[in-house]
Amino acid sequence: MNTKLCVLFVFAFVTWPCQGSDYQVFPLRMKTGYNEQYPIEVSCESWRLGVEANNLVKWKTVPAPCQEHVADYLLGDQYRSDSKTVCREAYFYAKTLNITQKDIFVFDVDDTALSNLQYFANHGFGVEEHNATAFKIWVSYGEAFALPETLKLYNKLLALGIKVVFITERPLDLKDVTVSNLQNVGFYKWDKLIARDPSIYSGKLSNAFKSSERTKLAEEGYRIVGNIGDQWSDIVGDKRGFRTFKLPNPLYYD
Amino acid sequence: MNTKLCVLFVFAFVTWPCQGSDYQVFPLRMKTGYNEQYPIEVSCESWRLGVEANNLVKWKTVPAPCQEHVADYLLGDQYRSDSKTVCREAYFYAKTLNITQKDIFVFDVDDTALSNLQYFANHGFGVEEHNATAFKIWVSYGEAFALPETLKLYNKLLALGIKVVFITERPLDLKDVTVSNLQNVGFYKWDKLIARDPSIYSGKLSNAFKSSERTKLAEEGYRIVGNIGDQWSDIVGDKRGFRTFKLPNPLYYD
Repeated sequence: MNTKLCVLFVFAFVTWPCQGSDYQVFPLRMKTGYNEQYPIEVSCESWRLGVEANNLVKWKTVPAPCQEHVADYLLGDQYRSDSKTVCREAYFYAKTLNITQKDIFVFDVDDTALSNLQYFANHGFGVEEHNATAFKIWVSYGEAFALPETLKLYNKLLALGIKVVFITERPLDLKDVTVSNLQNVGFYKWDKLIARDPSIYSGKLSNAFKSSERTKLAEEGYRIVGNIGDQWSDIVGDKRGFRTFKLPNPLYYD
Repeated sequence: MNTKLCVLFVFAFVTWPCQGSDYQVFPLRMKTGYNEQYPIEVSCESWRLGVEANNLVKWKTVPAPCQEHVADYLLGDQYRSDSKTVCREAYFYAKTLNITQKDIFVFDVDDTALSNLQYFANHGFGVEEHNATAFKIWVSYGEAFALPETLKLYNKLLALGIKVVFITERPLDLKDVTVSNLQNVGFYKWDKLIARDPSIYSGKLSNAFKSSERTKLAEEGYRIVGNIGDQWSDIVGDKRGFRTFKLPNPLYYD
């Protein structure tokens, strides 16, 4: 360790005069704190980044110490701004395409088009274990808000002549309420809305279900030019689309 | 708009008494600011998240207004904490494996094992266009620091009995200096270090090069249990590994 420190100081000393920038602190900084604990804000932000970049997978609940961080994130500007950046990029991409009649953009529903934040705000912001029954009751109200940046993207894609297909893990018996919820908040039209048929796709196989339904779309002649969802399972697998877009969601992993 | 506002207030009023949480502000908040401009800190953080989640691709330089944000990020705690979260997750995953003799973990070199931050600190933190000549000169010095969280992961994986293979886009003529740089900063051993042979892989086809080299490893009988890099091109494509880990890098897209 003494040798390392010595090398470090020699390096810092030798390179100091030739850098010409204000950022000399770096080498020293990175060498400190091998067993450092970061403030909770910092480590919760790392947790959230890990989720978004698909490094943290199959987690069951938001870490309890990050509840406030997650709530503040979702209720503040950052979530909206993050969503905007993704949706704007999707639009910039779509604008470059030569659109044909068969071009579709696949949208997920939950926390992509419709926000379940109201539900999660009343159920611990992801810290409580997921309660499928309570969640289904919430969905059945059909009162979810539109995610505003997604709605903007949706309208812009339609204006470009790209068709929209919704694929949702919501089961068939919630299809009607999903249709009316979407239409009530501004998603007025689509080519297809594919809900999960529990007699074919049971259990938690979101990725398999979505891959399989996208493959059917491709077989019907559709060309999936883009695909947007809040879960990695929405945008990986077969026929995922020429480009995929991951909206932020620090509330649950599916 | 008046109807919307009316519906909103009625909704807020009706739901107010039955919520039992402090987070009533949400529906109102999300309805405002359809054309909002976010503070630069907020939008640069969105840009960085967009990069990490692979929503923003093929970008040439860091947006000029985000230079300070990127510098502060890399020089502060957040970068180190974000790296730690990724590396710790990789280790937790590796611990669950039944390791065999042929199990390998693939590591990228630049900004995965070795940090080029000193170079970028002196070249505008990604805002300047990439200068391949200047960068090559920097690499040829062999003075890059180890990224401390990656080094910890590397040592822990070796201790578990997992072999390490480095695959780097650095060309063959920089292989010797890369070997000595790695060893000087604590990466003492590996099974293979595969540098790019420019006579086979020319130009900017990082993904194809890495996929192809990983496929060769699989054909030699190696089992790629994990793969870590700072670029999405490191961790997509064939034989990417059972699990992949994306380290943060807001400086360049490769």
